[in-house]
Amino acid sequence: MIFADLIYEKIEKSGNPTALGLDPRVEYIPDSIREKAGNDADSVLLFNERLIDILSDIIPVVKFQSAYYELLGPAGIAVLQKSMAYAKGRGMVVILDAKRNDIGSTAAAYAGAYLSDGHFAADALTVNAYLGSDGVRPFIDACKCYGKGIFILVKTSNPSSHEIQDLKLSDGMTVFEKMAEMVNGWGDGLVGSHGYNSVGAVAGATYPDELKRLRNAMPASFLLVPGYGTQGGGAADVANGFDENGNGAVVNSSRGIMCAWESDRLKGIFSHERFAEAARDEAIHMKNALSAAIGKENIKGE
Amino acid sequence: MIFADLIYEKIEKSGNPTALGLDPRVEYIPDSIREKAGNDADSVLLFNERLIDILSDIIPVVKFQSAYYELLGPAGIAVLQKSMAYAKGRGMVVILDAKRNDIGSTAAAYAGAYLSDGHFAADALTVNAYLGSDGVRPFIDACKCYGKGIFILVKTSNPSSHEIQDLKLSDGMTVFEKMAEMVNGWGDGLVGSHGYNSVGAVAGATYPDELKRLRNAMPASFLLVPGYGTQGGGAADVANGFDENGNGAVVNSSRGIMCAWESDRLKGIFSHERFAEAARDEAIHMKNALSAAIGKENIKGE
Repeated sequence: MIFADLIYEKIEKSGNPTALGLDPRVEYIPDSIREKAGNDADSVLLFNERLIDILSDIIPVVKFQSAYYELLGPAGIAVLQKSMAYAKGRGMVVILDAKRNDIGSTAAAYAGAYLSDGHFAADALTVNAYLGSDGVRPFIDACKCYGKGIFILVKTSNPSSHEIQDLKLSDGMTVFEKMAEMVNGWGDGLVGSHGYNSVGAVAGATYPDELKRLRNAMPASFLLVPGYGTQGGGAADVANGFDENGNGAVVNSSRGIMCAWESDRLKGIFSHERFAEAARDEAIHMKNALSAAIGKENIKGE
Repeated sequence: MIFADLIYEKIEKSGNPTALGLDPRVEYIPDSIREKAGNDADSVLLFNERLIDILSDIIPVVKFQSAYYELLGPAGIAVLQKSMAYAKGRGMVVILDAKRNDIGSTAAAYAGAYLSDGHFAADALTVNAYLGSDGVRPFIDACKCYGKGIFILVKTSNPSSHEIQDLKLSDGMTVFEKMAEMVNGWGDGLVGSHGYNSVGAVAGATYPDELKRLRNAMPASFLLVPGYGTQGGGAADVANGFDENGNGAVVNSSRGIMCAWESDRLKGIFSHERFAEAARDEAIHMKNALSAAIGKENIKGE
């Protein structure tokens, strides 16, 4: 099955277009786990497993942020690998958010590392395409070879994303609109049975107007939408990333779920030790908010 | 000592503005090393050590391409770490070419991974700034804190780099010229005693006219120039990256040195097993070609 169909169908089956963002910082992890593990890397592994165990029946997608694992050195990379395999074993779609970018054989090495059936075997990888097509082709080749996907950075969720991405070109378009046009072309030949292809785009929830324009400009690209919750994007904002049937996007929440126990809504209800239960409560809350915003049915809370 | 001074002085002392690119593919490594090592990751470590041993007295800078190590999984990352430490122990300036990019705390995690005194402790890291200033600030903060440097991708050496980087803006500038302008600003507060600062730029040798313009547009930025040799840039081309005194740039050669034994010039003279001697011959040849092109004295061959 190609990636475009995999993510579409997993989301459809669960009724939940949420990606669990696993960007674990050691301070997010409660004492009991840190004591049991004895070191930072193993703490992260246990923390991830707890979250995956309690969420994999209701959240279909997980996004690992590579930076936090790289920060822990080779042991952190081993934990990334194990966590990815664990999530896959629980039936989750695994996105590695590593924003890799290079050219020719070097891009092919990154694609081999993350999209082949090798050491990491993600279902999809985020890619920065500032280098142009020959920095993207090796990733597309890997998508074709292994049935995998990529998400190209188009419009990111951060305050200064305008500095390069919103620059106005001589033809009236912006840089990010030109990037969206290129993303459209890159998806040819990777179209799945639901009309979406395996070359998706990253489009931030914090710019809802741009998100709407990007949804229309890339009608066959799955959108990976960061910036929900802690970065300020709400359910109504991210709704702009979905098509008229409420499909075609996945919304990431990282700290919002991992640290739900200390959110305004749940503070005082769950202790740090009960972070996993709080995460499940928040995941259901988020799912219902998204469902309402995109016009789909709610699931019951527990 | 801040990075801007470190690289300037190491290059001045050696009289050689070359960076040894260690982008090792397993097929570059001769049988004897592969047999001795017994596995891919350890083969790469022995191969790197041989090259560093034979070149560190004449090449002042080494650039590791992260992709080839990531391709080998956690063991490859451990070899990257060991190779970086080995090169540092031999007195080389260590650049990690990983083109990292993200925002806020995630960018800070990458900066912590590679620019702190932690697991990898590179002297400098390549960074892709498509995300804008708040994707770069955490790296700059790390440069200030640890005396390290970054090289921002401005104009890359690949054929399709024009697709985004050369887009014409409504004010007549190109995207890469706007990026160069931003790089200029990011270097404030990191200026060393030779007039250069620790926020450098990647500017490809394959576009010599652009390289000249970028040298002038970023007068205080050290340039990291890829594309020499196998990608088609010659010594006259890369000369455009240097200032009027022949300073301010470092030229990378990866396959050209690692695989010198099979180059047109050296084929039949060195066997694959003698790759390290061929690499030294090529390094001296390249140094002399660069010296001639930028008007500095040659060193003697051996």
